Amino acid sequence: MRLSKVFAKTTKNVPADETSRNAQLLIQAGFIHKEMAGVYAYLPLGKKVLDNVVQVVREEMDDIGGQEISLTALQAKEVWDTTGRWNDDVIDVWFKTKLAGGGELGLAPTHEEPLTNLMRQFVTSYKDLPIYAYQFQTKFRNELRAKSGLMRGREFLMKDLYSFSPDQASHDEFYERVATAYSKVFDRLGLGDVTYKTFASGGSFSKYSHEYQTVSPVGEDTIYVHEGKKLAINKEVYNDEVLADLGINKAELTEMTAVEVGNIFTLGTKFSDALKLNFTGEDGAIHPVFMGSYGIGPSRLVGLIAEHFADDKGLVWPENIAPAEVYLARLGNSEEVVKAADELYDRLTGAGTSVLYDDRDIRPGQKFGDADLMGIPHRIVLSEKTLANGNFEYKARTSSDASLLSRESLAEMLGIPGSSLL
Amino acid sequence: MRLSKVFAKTTKNVPADETSRNAQLLIQAGFIHKEMAGVYAYLPLGKKVLDNVVQVVREEMDDIGGQEISLTALQAKEVWDTTGRWNDDVIDVWFKTKLAGGGELGLAPTHEEPLTNLMRQFVTSYKDLPIYAYQFQTKFRNELRAKSGLMRGREFLMKDLYSFSPDQASHDEFYERVATAYSKVFDRLGLGDVTYKTFASGGSFSKYSHEYQTVSPVGEDTIYVHEGKKLAINKEVYNDEVLADLGINKAELTEMTAVEVGNIFTLGTKFSDALKLNFTGEDGAIHPVFMGSYGIGPSRLVGLIAEHFADDKGLVWPENIAPAEVYLARLGNSEEVVKAADELYDRLTGAGTSVLYDDRDIRPGQKFGDADLMGIPHRIVLSEKTLANGNFEYKARTSSDASLLSRESLAEMLGIPGSSLL
Repeated sequence: MRLSKVFAKTTKNVPADETSRNAQLLIQAGFIHKEMAGVYAYLPLGKKVLDNVVQVVREEMDDIGGQEISLTALQAKEVWDTTGRWNDDVIDVWFKTKLAGGGELGLAPTHEEPLTNLMRQFVTSYKDLPIYAYQFQTKFRNELRAKSGLMRGREFLMKDLYSFSPDQASHDEFYERVATAYSKVFDRLGLGDVTYKTFASGGSFSKYSHEYQTVSPVGEDTIYVHEGKKLAINKEVYNDEVLADLGINKAELTEMTAVEVGNIFTLGTKFSDALKLNFTGEDGAIHPVFMGSYGIGPSRLVGLIAEHFADDKGLVWPENIAPAEVYLARLGNSEEVVKAADELYDRLTGAGTSVLYDDRDIRPGQKFGDADLMGIPHRIVLSEKTLANGNFEYKARTSSDASLLSRESLAEMLGIPGSSLL
Repeated sequence: MRLSKVFAKTTKNVPADETSRNAQLLIQAGFIHKEMAGVYAYLPLGKKVLDNVVQVVREEMDDIGGQEISLTALQAKEVWDTTGRWNDDVIDVWFKTKLAGGGELGLAPTHEEPLTNLMRQFVTSYKDLPIYAYQFQTKFRNELRAKSGLMRGREFLMKDLYSFSPDQASHDEFYERVATAYSKVFDRLGLGDVTYKTFASGGSFSKYSHEYQTVSPVGEDTIYVHEGKKLAINKEVYNDEVLADLGINKAELTEMTAVEVGNIFTLGTKFSDALKLNFTGEDGAIHPVFMGSYGIGPSRLVGLIAEHFADDKGLVWPENIAPAEVYLARLGNSEEVVKAADELYDRLTGAGTSVLYDDRDIRPGQKFGDADLMGIPHRIVLSEKTLANGNFEYKARTSSDASLLSRESLAEMLGIPGSSLL
C-alpha cells in the first residue's frame, strides 16, 4: 500500500477527549476514529489489524470444529422473555428500539437466546449433537461509562462460540479443547506470556467458569497469579475454599491488575430448559441439551495489544497482526531513488510481504516518526546514499539501532527467498 | 466439509410464514434462518455464499483504489441534524434508541453524514484528494413491510463506497470507473446478461443517477430496456426528454420488472456544504469537496441470485459463489467405499477444490435431493458400483444426466491437474 494513497493520516495531537492510552495512540496513528464514547470506526490500517486478529481467532475456532454463522443484531422481545433476560434489571445494558409497525426490539448484547431458539429447528436426536457454532458479531451494550477506548465499547466486535452437547461429559471434553484453543490464540497474538487462565465464578452447572486475563496496568479486574502453575484466581472467588480446591498456598500468589480477554462458561441446561431445546437420547428418553459459551473480543484485543506493546514512540504490533510487515521509507525524489524504491516495493509485494510504502514528499524525520507511531515491525530506508553503497538501511521497530544490510541479508531478515529481491 | 458435521439441515417443508421464493429456498436448504420479517441469520453454508459475494465486490472495489474501512451502526443525533436527515419525515426508516446516560442515538440506515464528518480530520488541501473509502456494513432500516426475503431487509449487509474528489471533472472520471467495476461485479456473479445500467433520477448536481437493475419477475421496479445499447431507463424518468437525451426511440424499448442491485450517485457538495468539508485548492481558494456514493447490497444479491437461478429442484449457485464446488455423495458404508470416498475428499480438498462431502448414513435419494436443493455445481457419486468400474459418476447441477468419468476426465471437468486425483 502506498502511504500517499492512505487517507487516514497520523497526528501529533493527543485527542483531548480521550483518557485511554490505546484510543489516543490508535487515533494519533490514524487507525481508528471516535464516533462517540465507546463507539469507534476502523480506518484502513485499523481495519487490517482487526481483520488479522479475527483471522487468528477464526483459524483456531475452525480447528476445534466450530462452524461459522452470523446471527442478527435486531432481537424480538418474545425470545428473551422466555429466560427473563428482556428485563432491563436482569440485563442492564440493553439498547431498545421500536418496529415501525409496532412491537419492541432490542440490539443483541449477547446471543444465547436466539441461537438456542434457532437450534430447536435442527436438534431432535442425539445424532444431531454435538454442535459448535460461532460468529464474529457486533454487540451493542448500553454502558453508562465508556472511557477505556477499545477495551470497553458500546458497539464492539465479539467472537462468541456456543456448544451444544448431549451430556456433561461430552461438554467437559469440548470445554477443555476450547481452553487449549484460547491459549493458542493468545500465544499467536503475542500475549501468551502475560495471559492467565483464571478461575472465576461459575453457575448452577459448574463451580467455576474460566476467564483469560491479561496482566495490564489499565485492567479493571484484580487477579491472583500463580506463576509456577500459570494460572490465576479472580478476586471474586479468591477464598480459602478455592485455594484448597486448587491446592495452592496464598503465599505463592501475586495480586495483579488484568484485562479479561476471553471467557469460557458452562451454561448447562439453563437456556435449553427455558427455550425447550431437547433431544431424544440413545436411551429413548427426552433430555435437555447441555450448553457452553465461549467469548473473545477482537476489538478489545486490538486495544489491549496496542496498549501492551506501545513504547514512548508509538504502537508496536506483533508481526502477525501488524497492518503491514514492512515500512519502506523512500528518502528523496531523484529518478534513480524512485525507480529503485518502486522496484523494491514490487518485489517485496510479489514475494508475499505486505508493505506500507512511504512514497510521500515529506521530511525523513516525519517518515521515521510515522513508521514508529504506526508500529510496523520492519523499517527499510532507501536513499541515494544506500543506493550508492548497494545496500539497505534496516531497523526493527523494537530496536533503536539501524544497520546496513545487503540484499541477501535483508531477504533473510524478512524470511523471504534471497532470489525474490534480485 | 463433511455434511455429517454441518448442523443446519435441509427440510422439505416450505416455511409457512414466507411468501418470497428466495427465503423459502434458502431456509429449506439450511442456508439462512428467519429471526423476524426482514431479519435473517446466516447459517454455515449461507455465510459462505455471502462471504463469497462480499469477496467479489471487495476485489473490484480494491481494484479501483477503494480503501476498506468500517463505520459504526450507532449514530449521534448532532451529526445528522446538520443535514436535516435526523428528522423522521426526511429519513422515514430510522431505528432510534437512547443512551443510558441520556441522549438520542440512531442506527445508521446509510453513512454519508458520519463519513463526511470524519473526513474533515484528514482533508485540508487538494493534495489530500481524491479519497475513495468503502465498507461492508450492516444497515438498519425500519421498513413498514418486509416480505421479500433477503431482497428487502430491516437489517442487511451493504457495500457502500463514497468518493471525495476535488472537482466535478475528477469525480466524473471516477464515477465511470465505478460503473465499469460494477459491471464486472455483476458479470462475475453470473448476472451480467440480465443486469442493465439504468438511468434514474439525479439530484442537484447531476441530471441522472444510475442504477444497476437485474430483470426479475419479483422486482419492485419497472424499467425500459434497450437491448442493443445494453441500458435501461427507470420508469421514474421515462419521458420524452430522457429519450431525446439518450437518442432512443420508444419503439426500441421493452418494459420489464427488475430488482435494483446497485446504484451510483453524484452527491456533489450537498453533504460537504452541510458538514463544512472544505479544502484549499491549487488556486489557494477554499472549495467544498465534490462527493459521490456507490452502493451494492451483498445480502440482497444472495437472495436475488438464489431466486434467479433456482429451478424446481432447488438452488443453483454460480460456481464462484457456491458454498462448495463439489458435492461428493458416498453411497454405502463398506470399508472400501468409505476409504475411497475419504481419500477422494482429501485429494480434492488438497487440490484446492471446496467439497461438501455427504458422508451421512441416509438414502441415496435423499443425498441427491440435498445436492440439488443446496445447488452445488458439481455432483460426484462414489459407490461399490463406480469403484468396481474404476470410475466416478458425475452430474452438473444444471444437467439432468449423470455420466461415468475416468479419474482424468473428472479432474479435467473440475479444472484441477489430473495428477492431483492419483
